[in-house]
Amino acid sequence: MVPDFKFVSIGVDLGGTKVDIGLVDPHGKIIQHIKEPTNVKGGPQAIIQGIAVAADKLQKANPSLKVSCVGVGVAGQIDHVNGSVRFAPNLKWNDVPLQQELHKALGLPIFVANDVRVATWGEWLFGEGKGSQDLICLFVGTGIGGGVVSNGHIMTGSTNSAGELGHMTVVLNGRKCHCGNRGCLEAYAGGWAIGEIAREEIAKDPAGGQRILQEARGNLEDVTAKQVSKVFLEGDPLANKVISQAVDALIGGMVGIVNAFNPEKIVLGGGVINGLPMLVPIVEKGVKNFALKVAAERLKIVPAKLKEEAGVVGAAAMASRRMKNDN
Amino acid sequence: MVPDFKFVSIGVDLGGTKVDIGLVDPHGKIIQHIKEPTNVKGGPQAIIQGIAVAADKLQKANPSLKVSCVGVGVAGQIDHVNGSVRFAPNLKWNDVPLQQELHKALGLPIFVANDVRVATWGEWLFGEGKGSQDLICLFVGTGIGGGVVSNGHIMTGSTNSAGELGHMTVVLNGRKCHCGNRGCLEAYAGGWAIGEIAREEIAKDPAGGQRILQEARGNLEDVTAKQVSKVFLEGDPLANKVISQAVDALIGGMVGIVNAFNPEKIVLGGGVINGLPMLVPIVEKGVKNFALKVAAERLKIVPAKLKEEAGVVGAAAMASRRMKNDN
Repeated sequence: MVPDFKFVSIGVDLGGTKVDIGLVDPHGKIIQHIKEPTNVKGGPQAIIQGIAVAADKLQKANPSLKVSCVGVGVAGQIDHVNGSVRFAPNLKWNDVPLQQELHKALGLPIFVANDVRVATWGEWLFGEGKGSQDLICLFVGTGIGGGVVSNGHIMTGSTNSAGELGHMTVVLNGRKCHCGNRGCLEAYAGGWAIGEIAREEIAKDPAGGQRILQEARGNLEDVTAKQVSKVFLEGDPLANKVISQAVDALIGGMVGIVNAFNPEKIVLGGGVINGLPMLVPIVEKGVKNFALKVAAERLKIVPAKLKEEAGVVGAAAMASRRMKNDN
Repeated sequence: MVPDFKFVSIGVDLGGTKVDIGLVDPHGKIIQHIKEPTNVKGGPQAIIQGIAVAADKLQKANPSLKVSCVGVGVAGQIDHVNGSVRFAPNLKWNDVPLQQELHKALGLPIFVANDVRVATWGEWLFGEGKGSQDLICLFVGTGIGGGVVSNGHIMTGSTNSAGELGHMTVVLNGRKCHCGNRGCLEAYAGGWAIGEIAREEIAKDPAGGQRILQEARGNLEDVTAKQVSKVFLEGDPLANKVISQAVDALIGGMVGIVNAFNPEKIVLGGGVINGLPMLVPIVEKGVKNFALKVAAERLKIVPAKLKEEAGVVGAAAMASRRMKNDN
């Protein structure tokens, strides 16, 4: 007799401000999810307990569905072998055996990965990267992170940190980056850098910066990429200058990525891109213009599909795929 | 009864000036080889015929060895699926079905790849990269090329051009590169660029450039990386300035490579590095200093082992491995 339940996965998006736990079907659709503030003060045990309780609720509310595995995306460094969180500054975690503890609580196979890696799994299996054998996902948010699929496998690297594409040097001895180095792509095109560069430009040209400043209620130190993006859409010349510089850096960095990795597709996501999707075709044109012909001949650059669902859907996708393939 | 012959591979290093054909044992040792000038004027058929005749000679001279497959490394773009040479400027070849023609001539399995990819196979299986699961080989010669091993597989990319690490942008809107773009790593640290930058520096400072000029018999236009390297070893200040700039660019580019790929090892080869091996520890120190801590914590940077044997040994290594694994 065929059993009357269907197999699903649970995806967990564990961030510093909220944790989102969802039941995800094999086609990447969220059936039901529970979103709660992250109890950072309670420490790892409180957060892990909270995830276990929510997972239990979701299972009980859907008795016809059988959960086969759980995937968790965490903003931090993850040990690929044992699924421990080595370091997660937003959670204030150091060496938390998340996989082991969640397995104890739920009795299910648990897979843990970095949030950007998880978002890459989501775009690869259920988003714009579906079917790609050689894919790059580049997420331009406050920082810039990426994920790489090479020959049909997610790239981990030797210490599970492959894909830190925001920290490729694009200007030797250039602007200071939060990572401690100089001239990283992120220091020119990440959200924090767009804000920083805008503040510098406004300080040099207060008249030109008036419109952006207005959005920040006159406080220069409150200017962020969000205000710059909003005013850019109105055609403000100073915002245009700042965003154009970020686009040039993105093109330069992505030319290097295309020549080095030779992907068939690049999925561009993250807050900066989601806010300014019209940049995607501009970036595509520039990259195709300056990359090696052989490397870019079949290349497509497209906006990400999953947006705010990327964490839950990607974590579930990763878990079900890794359980099958030991990928 | 156990047969009384041993299996070996043939490796072919096909360049614009010479073609080197060697019998290689399963441990990467060259048993016997034949090196001839490349008959570029005779066209593809003459060259293919020449390789077939040499392979036949090697087999007849070693009757106790059985050749199981042939690998060929070519300085050009190769179609990964059918082993055709799409474009090889030094050979003046366009769309030559090398794999098919050599198979017709020799009746053996033939595997064709780009010369840099082949050198990567050699270092990975028999050189300094032996045993690495995540390896980068970076060859700094006249140009800069690379090969990538990710999770125990050679990376090809979507159009078989992965590993063009010399064309990663390190200076936005920087020096013109031979590829048509600006600011590539190769335009700062490749042999041709070292020569070009030295010529510019000598033109600006003829007194400082005296010693290098002397090596070029007083002809500024004859100054190349070779003379700069020689005089650098004597402690010449202008040569030191030029090589130091190249080292800075190498460090910047390799920091990006380490953050993006997270290799456990980088093998540095090519003429510039072979001539100045003392640069390897300097580059290693700089890269470890500026790369993300998690990405570089286990990283080692070492000089290549195979040198001028890399082509023949690498091609044979690739052929025997691809025949076994369909890698």
